[in-house]
Amino acid sequence: MHPQRWGSPSHAAPLPESTQGLVEFAFGAFSTPALDMVTLPDSGLDEGALAGLRGLLGAENVLTDDETRRLRTRGKSTPDLLKARTGDLSDAPDAVVRPGSHDDVVKVLAWAVEQHVAVVPFGGGTSVTGGLVARRDGYAGLISLDLIRLNQLLSVDPISMTATLQPGMRGPEAEAALAQHGMTLGHFPQSFEFASIGGFAATRSSGQNSAGFGRFDQMVVGLRMATPIGDLISGSSPLNAAGPDLRQVAMGSEGTFGVITEVTVRVRAIATGTAYEAWRFDSFSSGQDAMRHLAQNQILPTIIRLSDETETALNLASQTAVGAEAPSGCLMIVGYEGASIDNKRAVVTRALTALGGTSLGEERGKTWLEGRFHAPYLRDSMLDSGVLVETLETATFWSNTDRLYSSVKTALGTSLGEGALVLCHVSHVYETGCSLYFTVAAKQGDNPLERWLAAKAAASDAMIESGATITHHHAVGTDHKAWLEREIGPVGVAILRGIKAAVDPTGILNPGVLIP
Amino acid sequence: MHPQRWGSPSHAAPLPESTQGLVEFAFGAFSTPALDMVTLPDSGLDEGALAGLRGLLGAENVLTDDETRRLRTRGKSTPDLLKARTGDLSDAPDAVVRPGSHDDVVKVLAWAVEQHVAVVPFGGGTSVTGGLVARRDGYAGLISLDLIRLNQLLSVDPISMTATLQPGMRGPEAEAALAQHGMTLGHFPQSFEFASIGGFAATRSSGQNSAGFGRFDQMVVGLRMATPIGDLISGSSPLNAAGPDLRQVAMGSEGTFGVITEVTVRVRAIATGTAYEAWRFDSFSSGQDAMRHLAQNQILPTIIRLSDETETALNLASQTAVGAEAPSGCLMIVGYEGASIDNKRAVVTRALTALGGTSLGEERGKTWLEGRFHAPYLRDSMLDSGVLVETLETATFWSNTDRLYSSVKTALGTSLGEGALVLCHVSHVYETGCSLYFTVAAKQGDNPLERWLAAKAAASDAMIESGATITHHHAVGTDHKAWLEREIGPVGVAILRGIKAAVDPTGILNPGVLIP
Repeated sequence: MHPQRWGSPSHAAPLPESTQGLVEFAFGAFSTPALDMVTLPDSGLDEGALAGLRGLLGAENVLTDDETRRLRTRGKSTPDLLKARTGDLSDAPDAVVRPGSHDDVVKVLAWAVEQHVAVVPFGGGTSVTGGLVARRDGYAGLISLDLIRLNQLLSVDPISMTATLQPGMRGPEAEAALAQHGMTLGHFPQSFEFASIGGFAATRSSGQNSAGFGRFDQMVVGLRMATPIGDLISGSSPLNAAGPDLRQVAMGSEGTFGVITEVTVRVRAIATGTAYEAWRFDSFSSGQDAMRHLAQNQILPTIIRLSDETETALNLASQTAVGAEAPSGCLMIVGYEGASIDNKRAVVTRALTALGGTSLGEERGKTWLEGRFHAPYLRDSMLDSGVLVETLETATFWSNTDRLYSSVKTALGTSLGEGALVLCHVSHVYETGCSLYFTVAAKQGDNPLERWLAAKAAASDAMIESGATITHHHAVGTDHKAWLEREIGPVGVAILRGIKAAVDPTGILNPGVLIP
Repeated sequence: MHPQRWGSPSHAAPLPESTQGLVEFAFGAFSTPALDMVTLPDSGLDEGALAGLRGLLGAENVLTDDETRRLRTRGKSTPDLLKARTGDLSDAPDAVVRPGSHDDVVKVLAWAVEQHVAVVPFGGGTSVTGGLVARRDGYAGLISLDLIRLNQLLSVDPISMTATLQPGMRGPEAEAALAQHGMTLGHFPQSFEFASIGGFAATRSSGQNSAGFGRFDQMVVGLRMATPIGDLISGSSPLNAAGPDLRQVAMGSEGTFGVITEVTVRVRAIATGTAYEAWRFDSFSSGQDAMRHLAQNQILPTIIRLSDETETALNLASQTAVGAEAPSGCLMIVGYEGASIDNKRAVVTRALTALGGTSLGEERGKTWLEGRFHAPYLRDSMLDSGVLVETLETATFWSNTDRLYSSVKTALGTSLGEGALVLCHVSHVYETGCSLYFTVAAKQGDNPLERWLAAKAAASDAMIESGATITHHHAVGTDHKAWLEREIGPVGVAILRGIKAAVDPTGILNPGVLIP
C-alpha cells in the first residue's frame, strides 16, 4: 500500500458529489497540501550486517531500496498518514527482509539477537494504532520482517473443520484458498482486503460477521510462534484445562513475544444462503436493547450492527443510492448467512418487531454490504479535502453503554470543538455487552496531528474513566499503550513484562509496542 | 469432606446389589482394609509465626487442630484417597487459615512472603489431579488458605446479565444465591456439590451443560486475583484487543499466580422449560459423527454426551431402574433447557434421526439427570470393595478421536491387565473436536497406588503421543505436570515461569503445582 493512503489506487474513493457538498458545508473547502520532498533516512545497517542477512535469506529477500522501505514505514492510522503526508519517514526500517519459511524466520531472529537489531513483524501493514512504529533507540538498527512470502494454505482438515494458514496470507487470499475446499473463515474486518492472517491473530481482530462467526481469537485453535528462545506450539485441542491458555497469550501480543508463523483456524462450510436487511429503531438505546435481547437469548444473526442517530442520518445522506427517504431514528443492519437461514430469520424478525423495530427491507442491507470495505478509502479523500477523519472503538458491558457513549462523544466534541462530527455504531455484540465504534470528522486546522492526538487522548481518558476497554479490536500498538497500563494495572503490566523477559530476553521484538 | 471419601456421608452410595454382583464377578470379592492409625505430622509453624497470623485474621480463623488439618489434606484423586486410606497424612498443612475478605487474603500473602511459608489456596478441595499437594521443601511451613468464608454473591447486573461472586461459594450456594435474582450460571460439573467458584476458574472447569452454557472459562468476564505483588483486576469488557487476555492467564493458573478473590460471570435467566432424552446409536463412531454434525451446524442442545459400547452396557446393567431391555450400541444423553426448547428440539431430533439415531425416550434421560453427581460416591464404595476406580479425560480434534480413543484404551488395558474395565464417553463437544472421558475399574492388587500410577502414566503418554491434551477439564495439578511440559513445550513452560517470577517472586503460591 501507498504510505500516505489506504489500499489499491484503483479502488480509491473520490468523495461523491453529494458528500463533497456536505464536507464543504461542514468544514469549508480545502485543497490537498503539496507534499514536502520526502527524505528517507539512510539505512543504519552496515554492509557486514546486511551481508549476514543476505547469506541467510538470499540477496533478493533483503531489500534496502527507498521505495520498499517507504512502503513498510508505519501503518494506517491517521497520525501515520498525516506524518507521511508531511514527508516524515523517520520511522522507515533500515531493511525489509522476506523470509520464505518458518525456519527462515527463526534464522532472522537469531541474527537479530546477535546484532541487537529491532524486528518489526509486518503482515498487511494495516495497523491503525501505531503497531508498526517500534522504538529504535538503543538498537543497532531496525528491520521490517515482511511475511508476504508466507502465504500458503498448509493443510485443511475437513472432519474437524480446521485449516492451517501461513501468516502472510491476506484476507482475500485466505478466503480464496479455503473456497477451493468449500470452506470459509468468515472473518471480514474493514481491513479485510489487505490485513493478514498473522496480523488478525496478533491483534485479536474482530470482523463484521462476528455475531455469527465470532472474533478471530475465537476462531484460532492452534498457533506456531517463533521466539528468540524457540518455538511456541500451542493447540492440542479445541479447549482444555492444561494451564493458562497460551493461545490467548500469543494472541494480542502484537509481535512483541514472537512471530506467528502458522495459524490453525476453525472454518465453516461456505454458506449457501444469504440475506441482508435494514431495520429502523426509534433510538440508539432501543436498538441496543433489541441487540441485547437477541444476544442474551442466543438468537443472533450472522451480522448485526446499529448506527446512532447521527451516523444514520449521515450514512443515508451520503449514499449515492437514493429512492428511499432518509428515515429518522437509528439504522440497524442485520445479515444472515448459512445453510438454512429462514428459521433463524423468522425468529429474529419476530423478536426485532416485538422490540419496536421496523424492517426497511433488503435494499439498504445490500448497499451496506457492497460498501463494507470502502470507508478507509473515503478517509483519504476526506484528508485531501482538509477533513480529519479517524475511527476509534471500545467495548463495555450493556449496563454501561450509555455512560460510555456519552462520555466519549462529549470528550471528542469538546476537544475538537464546533463543527466536529462524531458518529457511532455498535459493531459487535456479546451476551454481556457490546463494542462502540466511533467515527470522527473535523476540520484539520493548522496542526491536524496535534489536534487529533489531543482529541484521541480525551476519548481514551473517557473510555478508561468509564471502566471500558481502550480497544475492542484495533489493538494497542503504541497509541494506546499509556491507557493499557491504566486498564490492566501494574500487575497486568508485570505479567506482560514477565512473559517478554522470558521469550525475548534481549528485547528485539517490536520494542516499544504494546508493553508499557 | 472426609479425607478418605467423596462428599457428604448422607449421600454415600453403597453399591446397588446388581453392581455389587457385577463387581464380584469382575474383580472378585474384597473386604475394606482396616485403616492404619492415622499419624498427623506436628504443625511445623512455631508460635511466633502463628501469633502473627492470628493477629491478622483473629485466632478463630487460624486453625491448627488435627481434625481441621486432616480435612484440608490433599484432594480427591484416587491416589489422594488411597494415601489417606493407608493413614498417610504427610501432606497435611501446618495450619488452615480462613480469610474473610480480599484484604485478608492480601495480608496473608504478605505474611507468607515474609515468613517464606507456602500457601495452598483451598476452595472445595475436589481436585482430582493433585492440585492441593504442594511442595514444602525449602519453605518454613505450608498453610491451607481456606476460602470458605468468602462465600457471598457480591453483586448482580441484570442488564448485562453478569454476577460477581466470591471464590469460596460452592456450586449449590452460587446457584441458590443467583436463583433469588432469577439467574443461573448453568455450570454443573460432577463435583458441583462441593467445588467452588474460585476453583472452577483456577482450573478451567467444564460442566455437564457445556454444550449450551459453555465451559467455565467461557463464562468468566472478570476476575480479581491477589498476588504477592498486588492485585490483578481484569475484565473491562466482554472481549477486547487490549493485549493478551489476562483472564485466560489467571484461569488455569491453579493457585500458582495468585488467589482469585472475585469472579464476574455471565449468567442466564433460569430456564423455564427442560427436557432430557436418551438416544441410541449403532456405534461410538456414528454417535460422534452425529455430535459433530450438530456442533458444526451450530444446533447443539444444552447437554449432549455419548457413552461408548462398554460404558453403555455397564451403565444400563447397573441402573436400578429397569423395564427397558438394555440396548446394544451406544447411549447418547441429550438435554434441552431454555425458554423455548421445542424449536431447537425439533431441529436436533430431525438431525439425529437422519444420522442414524433412535430415540429411547425421556425416561432414561431423567435417570441420567438424577444420578449426574453420584459417580464419585460410587467410587468410594468400589474402593471399599477392593476395586480401583478412577477417571481421566482428554480432548482432541474430531479427525483424531479414533486414534486417541484406541490408544488410551489400549494403554490402560495393557497396564492394568486382564479383567480391567475401561469405559469412555464423550463429555463435551466443540465445532472442531471433543473430549473423551474415561472411567477405569480394575482390581486393586497388592499395591493399588503403584498399579494406578503406572496405568495413569501409560494413558497420559498415549494422550500426548496422540497429539491430544493431558487434560480437558480436570486441570494439571501435580499429577499431570510432567505431561504438561510435553504438551506446551519448553517455550510454553518458560512463559509460565516468566509469569510466576513476575507475580510471585519468592514462589510461595502452591509450589510444585502446575508449573514444571
